[in-house]
Amino acid sequence: MRELVVHELLFDAAYQHESQSVISGHHLYTYGAIHTRAVRLAERMVRLGISPGTVVGVMDVNSHRYLELKYALSMVGAVIHTINFRLSPEDILFTIHHARDEWLFLWEGFGTLAQSLSNSVPHCVWMGSETGGRGSTDYETLIAEGREQVPDIAGTIAPSDWYSVFYTTGTTGKPKGIRYTHQQMLMGALQIAHHLALHDTGAKLSAQDVIMPLIPFFHIHGWGAPFIATYLGASLVLPELGGPAEQIGWIRQHHVSWSNMVPTQLFMLLEEAQKQQLDRLTLKVLTGGSPLSLGLARRADQFGISLSLIYGGSDQLGSAISTATQPKGPHRLEQLTTRLTPLPMAHIEVRNDSLELTPSDGNTLGEVWVQSPWLPDGYLNDSEQTAAAFNHGWFRSGDLAVRYPDGRLYVLDRTKDAIKSGGEWIAGSTIESVLSEVPGVNAAAVIAVPDDKWGERPLAVVEVQGEVSQETLYQALNQAVAQGRLVKFWIPDTIRFIDRMPLTSAGKINKAALRAGT
Amino acid sequence: MRELVVHELLFDAAYQHESQSVISGHHLYTYGAIHTRAVRLAERMVRLGISPGTVVGVMDVNSHRYLELKYALSMVGAVIHTINFRLSPEDILFTIHHARDEWLFLWEGFGTLAQSLSNSVPHCVWMGSETGGRGSTDYETLIAEGREQVPDIAGTIAPSDWYSVFYTTGTTGKPKGIRYTHQQMLMGALQIAHHLALHDTGAKLSAQDVIMPLIPFFHIHGWGAPFIATYLGASLVLPELGGPAEQIGWIRQHHVSWSNMVPTQLFMLLEEAQKQQLDRLTLKVLTGGSPLSLGLARRADQFGISLSLIYGGSDQLGSAISTATQPKGPHRLEQLTTRLTPLPMAHIEVRNDSLELTPSDGNTLGEVWVQSPWLPDGYLNDSEQTAAAFNHGWFRSGDLAVRYPDGRLYVLDRTKDAIKSGGEWIAGSTIESVLSEVPGVNAAAVIAVPDDKWGERPLAVVEVQGEVSQETLYQALNQAVAQGRLVKFWIPDTIRFIDRMPLTSAGKINKAALRAGT
Repeated sequence: MRELVVHELLFDAAYQHESQSVISGHHLYTYGAIHTRAVRLAERMVRLGISPGTVVGVMDVNSHRYLELKYALSMVGAVIHTINFRLSPEDILFTIHHARDEWLFLWEGFGTLAQSLSNSVPHCVWMGSETGGRGSTDYETLIAEGREQVPDIAGTIAPSDWYSVFYTTGTTGKPKGIRYTHQQMLMGALQIAHHLALHDTGAKLSAQDVIMPLIPFFHIHGWGAPFIATYLGASLVLPELGGPAEQIGWIRQHHVSWSNMVPTQLFMLLEEAQKQQLDRLTLKVLTGGSPLSLGLARRADQFGISLSLIYGGSDQLGSAISTATQPKGPHRLEQLTTRLTPLPMAHIEVRNDSLELTPSDGNTLGEVWVQSPWLPDGYLNDSEQTAAAFNHGWFRSGDLAVRYPDGRLYVLDRTKDAIKSGGEWIAGSTIESVLSEVPGVNAAAVIAVPDDKWGERPLAVVEVQGEVSQETLYQALNQAVAQGRLVKFWIPDTIRFIDRMPLTSAGKINKAALRAGT
Repeated sequence: MRELVVHELLFDAAYQHESQSVISGHHLYTYGAIHTRAVRLAERMVRLGISPGTVVGVMDVNSHRYLELKYALSMVGAVIHTINFRLSPEDILFTIHHARDEWLFLWEGFGTLAQSLSNSVPHCVWMGSETGGRGSTDYETLIAEGREQVPDIAGTIAPSDWYSVFYTTGTTGKPKGIRYTHQQMLMGALQIAHHLALHDTGAKLSAQDVIMPLIPFFHIHGWGAPFIATYLGASLVLPELGGPAEQIGWIRQHHVSWSNMVPTQLFMLLEEAQKQQLDRLTLKVLTGGSPLSLGLARRADQFGISLSLIYGGSDQLGSAISTATQPKGPHRLEQLTTRLTPLPMAHIEVRNDSLELTPSDGNTLGEVWVQSPWLPDGYLNDSEQTAAAFNHGWFRSGDLAVRYPDGRLYVLDRTKDAIKSGGEWIAGSTIESVLSEVPGVNAAAVIAVPDDKWGERPLAVVEVQGEVSQETLYQALNQAVAQGRLVKFWIPDTIRFIDRMPLTSAGKINKAALRAGT
């Protein structure tokens, strides 16, 4: 039987699209070559004792090695732990122990960090940036020693077997682990492609696209983009290292047509494009992870970047992507930043504090509850957090949203980031969006500060370049009130200027740090 | 948990697209209304004793009733037997007994045929063309008696539970039954939509389409089109009764943008369009079931119909759909009739008589072997036929194809329809395609006739309108040889003219009848 297991994607790509290119750093591979290398690696792994259920930690940049491991570990039934190298060394070690990693595959480019981890588990494989590496077990040596023969075990892996474990990057407490089966991971990834293709979206995907995932593979496997590319047999570009300047180089050199990134990466890419005095940077971009301001969306639009916003997270995978109702309507850009449609087969409800459905009036805030065939059962070895968030097959996201009469959603904020003032919610992200549209504003964040009278009041923090006055910002806020975008009592009492906005390991604005600084 | 079960599609459509229209004959419904009716029906069914595993036969034209039953029976875990009303009464009875139907839902429009079947099972429900019907149990009465409350049992139905049974329409022997689970049926249907959207296809689907399935629901649930429409929340038009004239009326009145039909239906639709002196009939059409001749494709193209060809069958569901490599290349039309790409997650191999893979040279004929996550285990209660066709998770299709260097396939013919002459295969469908392009040729069929010297030789049978001479037809064949489309020894020794081409119950040319007549 043919089953919904991850390595089937590579088997198909190698058969149907054998010579399609997979570019990784300065190396040019094909799906045929990646297949051969992954099969050799899997065959060697079996003889090394890596078997169904073995947890294998991988710490690498987005590279062909990581891609090969995603498929080789699937073939042998091992569970891939995608290590978030942006966590603190202490938290990285915590996740390695918590996930019970028995093997580590470490890219030597991480230097002393990788060295310090190498003794934390029984077995370690070094991945060199070129063909060779140091240490007792070397990645390329394993591939060279492997026979080109799919291990028998590959045919026994079931859709309900565990495929991967990874950790949420919460700003409070220890990282929470989540495991996904083959079927969950595949469905979660592929429904993103299906949604983008079936609806009128900005980041529409097709088999003809050249795909460059900029979301790190440790973050929900790059939002599933490497699986999607393999599934489509689409040309794949893996940038390995490199900042915005290198990314623009890749885009132009390899005719990249589709990418994914968080808004901060998009902002930096546009800064670089401007610096290079580029007029256009034609690209379809799936963005998310934090609210996308209309200001940034407009700027991207001027460069010819076509956007879709995705809503989801490590503990639910993707759940909704923005769609436009008209191919070229005047509100298209606004819709692509604020009107989300659930992914096919996903079901989203918005509930108030009494757990009742909120009216679909585009106005009433409630909490996002999600159901989907790829939803996990809960957090790994954490019954308390599981009980708080997972409820009879529903995931209680802790995110605030409104639902519109046409059924689409606008996810405004994290509950914990939202501000409750005089018993009413204030959506900080809408205020942030208005501020970010003011010329000269690089980034804006709104946080809650305690207030004797109202309980909480919003405080705005902005990073600007050049001269931007308080007065200009308040003018923009008052204009937004006049337009009906903001409610008058949402206007922050204080706007604070900051030199550099603090970011989390996932590239999002670190509101915890801002709160700590108030 | 949210699972891959059929009724989830309707639950989502009713929540996300409650007021989207579902037109059935002269009735206008919405997904919200269909959901309410299906829930009432399911709730009533539970109290009538229809329970998980109960086999329920349904005989109806493509209507809202059929749509409601697809979802209501899913909710109660019953198995829907979609009765092929184009079989002989004897064969229909055979399938009812073979599938072990306990209930029949019969549309009274079938008159005496329905009457004759009504006593063959313990329980019968009559479906009237209007709101009322005769007999002891009436469909609308059941809905009126049902409470608007999803039965508890709906939450317990698993993806691996049986959802449907239907029968192949083979021209020899008794019909063969095949059962599909919820997950198989959903994947088989939805991967069609995904493929059409992700690749450059003629019948590209999107959530904005207005979908009118012309493939009868007894034939693989209308190739999954009603499931696809619900999944997309797309407007659905169910024509109930009506020939080509009515179909054109529906297309224009309801702005139908997407349909499916066999080539014979397409031919009749174009005949009618010509009769009505229409210049254009803008429509995306998924066609298949028998080879699509380039002549018919050209004619459709002139009307503005954009085509995709699907390859599959009752015993494998959909497996491949044609794609073009260039959006507007000169060979686009030819590619959309002859270059098939496997559906996402489907795997197709072409093997010779020794079971070896044939070279991907676009020339060497071999048999199509298929693997997919929606492939059934075999035929229902028929170990002999199962052993002949199902082999270690592969389905041996009995269809002949060549594979091109780019991995795409051209499925030429059924093995049993192909002609073996002097030890070499002759693909009758290619000859048919050449003949069908000759102006005045309505239909062409090529069958094998015994030959002392060569074993078999091809005989062509053509249905023409107006004056078409043998000489003209041979000129076309010789020209095709000069162009490299045909091999010289493929040219039929005899071309026979026939008044009216015999058709099977599925609207395909009945080659068995032609062979019997030689």
